[in-house]
Amino acid sequence: MIVLGIDPGYALMGWGVVESKGNRMRLINYGCVETYAHTPMQHRLRSLYQGVRDLVNIYQPDDVAFEELFFAHNVTTALMVGAARGAAIIAATEYTENLYEYTPGQIKQAVTGSGRADKKQVQQMVKMLLGMDEIPKPDDAADAIACAMTHCQAGIAKEQFRMK
Amino acid sequence: MIVLGIDPGYALMGWGVVESKGNRMRLINYGCVETYAHTPMQHRLRSLYQGVRDLVNIYQPDDVAFEELFFAHNVTTALMVGAARGAAIIAATEYTENLYEYTPGQIKQAVTGSGRADKKQVQQMVKMLLGMDEIPKPDDAADAIACAMTHCQAGIAKEQFRMK
Repeated sequence: MIVLGIDPGYALMGWGVVESKGNRMRLINYGCVETYAHTPMQHRLRSLYQGVRDLVNIYQPDDVAFEELFFAHNVTTALMVGAARGAAIIAATEYTENLYEYTPGQIKQAVTGSGRADKKQVQQMVKMLLGMDEIPKPDDAADAIACAMTHCQAGIAKEQFRMK
Repeated sequence: MIVLGIDPGYALMGWGVVESKGNRMRLINYGCVETYAHTPMQHRLRSLYQGVRDLVNIYQPDDVAFEELFFAHNVTTALMVGAARGAAIIAATEYTENLYEYTPGQIKQAVTGSGRADKKQVQQMVKMLLGMDEIPKPDDAADAIACAMTHCQAGIAKEQFRMK
């Protein structure tokens, strides 16, 4: 199974592609879709949409796993991040109906065994479990990889995490 | 000039198409794209995206005018409404780069002459200026029509309202 993990963001949208076979996971690729301040909003949203569209077409994931957004500093930020997430969801849905969603706590729990692990611990485990030479950068990409790994580990329980 | 006005919303996205020739405005059509609670988010966003896509293809507007979102009751609502707005913007941008944005205050000012007019006054003026028999329903559609009218009235000053 190939899983595309996405950490939705407006300036940086992290992504990671992980393949799982039985208990084994293999990192295929990762990165960020970046958009730039001072660029009109419609272009930024379009870039995010197009970026996710390219990703699903290139990697043809069986499932797409999103990190759930829980908080935002304020309503204005929430409107922007919500729009970015919407762009990613629309693009992914063009390719597959299999969208899933995990909270930051669920991701920490799955990757480190503790729902209260900090960012560094999660990144260390991502590096170790996927046999990487370095911690994946930037943080947004590492988060997206961790999200894809969480989905791989959900196994047959994954249906309860289907996006509602 | 044909203008598509949009009042972005998650459950109801109002729209109105207005044609302006010189100082004259004519209502072409209006309505709402509706999405339903208990439907997965990805389907609701997809419906909004597809709805706006259909509208631009059917009415072929020169410009698309959005009512700007200023507030939301809370961050969760803002994330949803932001996603709905993102869906509409992406769909519109597939058709045209001419997206504009007006605040509720600017719309009230343009339609009634007072930035502090209430909803009813705005709706009465929409009905009168467009020679309608009744106040357009629901409110979301009336708001979208008022937004399109505001853009028609902006005339050569419209560039300052281009979406940033």
